Amino acid sequence: MKRILAFSLLLGCSLVLSAQQALGPGTGLISPEINPDHSVTFRYQNPKAITVQVTGDFLPTRPIEIDLGDRKMVYDAPGIADLQEGPGGIWTYTSAPLKGELYSYSLLVDGKKVMDPSNIYQIRDVATWTNVFTLSAEPGDLGWYYEVQNVPHGSVSHVWYNSPTLSSQRRLTIYTPAGYEDSLDRYPVLYLLHGSGGDEDAWTDLGRTAQIMDNLIAQGYAKPMIVVMPNGVWFNQAAPGAAVNMFQPTMTNSRSQSTIEVENSFPDIMDFVEKHFRVAKGYSNTAVAGLSMGGRQSCMLSMHYPRKFGYVGLFSGVAVPEGNEEALAAVFAAKPKLYWIGCGKADGVMVNSKKLKEYCDKMGYPVTLYESEGGHIWRNWRIYLTIFAQYLFQDFEPGSRALAAVQDLEQEEF
Amino acid sequence: MKRILAFSLLLGCSLVLSAQQALGPGTGLISPEINPDHSVTFRYQNPKAITVQVTGDFLPTRPIEIDLGDRKMVYDAPGIADLQEGPGGIWTYTSAPLKGELYSYSLLVDGKKVMDPSNIYQIRDVATWTNVFTLSAEPGDLGWYYEVQNVPHGSVSHVWYNSPTLSSQRRLTIYTPAGYEDSLDRYPVLYLLHGSGGDEDAWTDLGRTAQIMDNLIAQGYAKPMIVVMPNGVWFNQAAPGAAVNMFQPTMTNSRSQSTIEVENSFPDIMDFVEKHFRVAKGYSNTAVAGLSMGGRQSCMLSMHYPRKFGYVGLFSGVAVPEGNEEALAAVFAAKPKLYWIGCGKADGVMVNSKKLKEYCDKMGYPVTLYESEGGHIWRNWRIYLTIFAQYLFQDFEPGSRALAAVQDLEQEEF
Repeated sequence: MKRILAFSLLLGCSLVLSAQQALGPGTGLISPEINPDHSVTFRYQNPKAITVQVTGDFLPTRPIEIDLGDRKMVYDAPGIADLQEGPGGIWTYTSAPLKGELYSYSLLVDGKKVMDPSNIYQIRDVATWTNVFTLSAEPGDLGWYYEVQNVPHGSVSHVWYNSPTLSSQRRLTIYTPAGYEDSLDRYPVLYLLHGSGGDEDAWTDLGRTAQIMDNLIAQGYAKPMIVVMPNGVWFNQAAPGAAVNMFQPTMTNSRSQSTIEVENSFPDIMDFVEKHFRVAKGYSNTAVAGLSMGGRQSCMLSMHYPRKFGYVGLFSGVAVPEGNEEALAAVFAAKPKLYWIGCGKADGVMVNSKKLKEYCDKMGYPVTLYESEGGHIWRNWRIYLTIFAQYLFQDFEPGSRALAAVQDLEQEEF
Repeated sequence: MKRILAFSLLLGCSLVLSAQQALGPGTGLISPEINPDHSVTFRYQNPKAITVQVTGDFLPTRPIEIDLGDRKMVYDAPGIADLQEGPGGIWTYTSAPLKGELYSYSLLVDGKKVMDPSNIYQIRDVATWTNVFTLSAEPGDLGWYYEVQNVPHGSVSHVWYNSPTLSSQRRLTIYTPAGYEDSLDRYPVLYLLHGSGGDEDAWTDLGRTAQIMDNLIAQGYAKPMIVVMPNGVWFNQAAPGAAVNMFQPTMTNSRSQSTIEVENSFPDIMDFVEKHFRVAKGYSNTAVAGLSMGGRQSCMLSMHYPRKFGYVGLFSGVAVPEGNEEALAAVFAAKPKLYWIGCGKADGVMVNSKKLKEYCDKMGYPVTLYESEGGHIWRNWRIYLTIFAQYLFQDFEPGSRALAAVQDLEQEEF
């Protein structure tokens, strides 16, 4: 026993010594473990802990009541489940069987958040890191789209462009589809905008854009396209770690601060992309979409440049029709191929999404409103991208395979 | 007070609600805070904790004795310092003033590792995440090179290539210098290899390659060059998150498993790069360097292809001369512009580094051995890259500004 302990210590130390600046080795535990029935087991070792819990979006939400003094508010918080302690201070919990998805979670040890040390997969959302895992219950489910499949892969590049309008160098992320480098073709472009507190890496990191596009294109469900993901916070040059100063991102970059600057400077982005990439230019080859703040920006951009974007996607973010009647008239006078709104039924943005949809219906402007379950969350934005991307740059034949795929996804119960 | 609490709760919840899938808001604490004297203050709130400590490479190492049964071994573990509890359960610790560097640390709460929730900056090394921060005490110090400066920035792209030799698609990371997109020039290439347990993202994430190259090039201390960072674990297609399967990286990919496959398949990488990027081909425009396992791979590659690499950098990783006498003769018959070994004085690899150096000296092969402080750690590999890159693809005039910069860095006490 003593020898085993010494060996373990030595193994741990030799890892530290021989390998790099890591402050400790792995835990030796498997967590999370995806079981054959698609339930998931979490494991964490800590003999001193009094309670160990897991909280994440794979659990049913739990309503919590907040006392605001003069009134009370109910908030749907992520669920919490208790791990049970076993031999060796190893705590475990097994979930119910789960559907294919990308899930986020954190551990709570005596009530304090701890990253699962057995799981290297983590994603940052604004200023919060969480562990993540993907699960695919069957080929073609949502989790399958978010995982790397054995298909041809596109490239993801982080490039800098000059913005004369904002007097700064700025960073953007660009996806070019598999085959781009070996082709002489020009490709249509989707400009894809992040939300408040996000940056040019949000759509690839949290949104799994490269995987979704690779998989949709490989299946023949989406046209090969370039996806441009700029930084939509006009006063930030780049994401944390790529920017001068080690800033902490916050949600304070409000709508009013960002939108006008984004509209005015957007041609700088398009000029750069059209100059440096083999882009099929023009209305019917150009789409804009975004989530939350980026949805509102997309809505404003389409009104500001009504002849630029033949496809518009507003994911949980819109502008209201009031005051924009003329601009909307110009948008629809250009006859967009698709004007698509996606919003969660529990999302506060649904009120304005419906307001815009009803106004457009009244005016005879063709607008699709896709209502999904849940609220203002990345889960929905990944779904919206997976659906929206299939509509882009193609005219569907009735009964076509690709159209059927969109409809299946829209009808799936999430 | 109650109202303040309710407001805080609401603020927290509204962040969760309005923003994205984050499971919690920021902490409201600043940690780490870099003080005017370049000391650093760490803060962490937890009224229930009995002890809170910080461990990291900014602290003096602490020798720990390991009992192996038949013998004992001393290991220089990262230092540990105690945070002191203050009002509101906020624990603090302030370090001594620090030199410009990139530092890694973790918190220990009642002895268990916890990520600093106030610091979004984290880097993964093999299977371990740690918090990081950079500090620049004066322009031109090491920390300055590792930070993003207000200089022209190169691009970092993650691309896939086909390896007929390994019968797989594989991912590599490529840095192209500022101006590459707008130029018609051809650029020299540095192939830069990671260590055991690493992947094609290690040199950009832990090694700060893009920042080092941007800053050296902007200063005129390095020639504009392309840096190609492949995945040197032949049986992995890509880094975790970009690969099929959510694997946990380990250190088990030993030398013998990797090296021959890497040597045989390396032309697949060079063919891809030379076909898809504007590369200045040939011996005097091509460098190879790597750390640890990648150092040994670089050594083997230079022997396998003695007329390919005019510059060779072996960072804490070499092959021994025994059995390689003929291959080494061929390497030096081609008259490399630079054959540079970097190794830490406390590194176990120093024995073999000296063995190679002494053999080359005896044979009259010109080899530089640069000995730095410390051991087998990323701190040294960033330093080696910062020095090595300045020598590449240029002949120094005696007394030149660039040469002086290299010499300053080599003579600095770290």
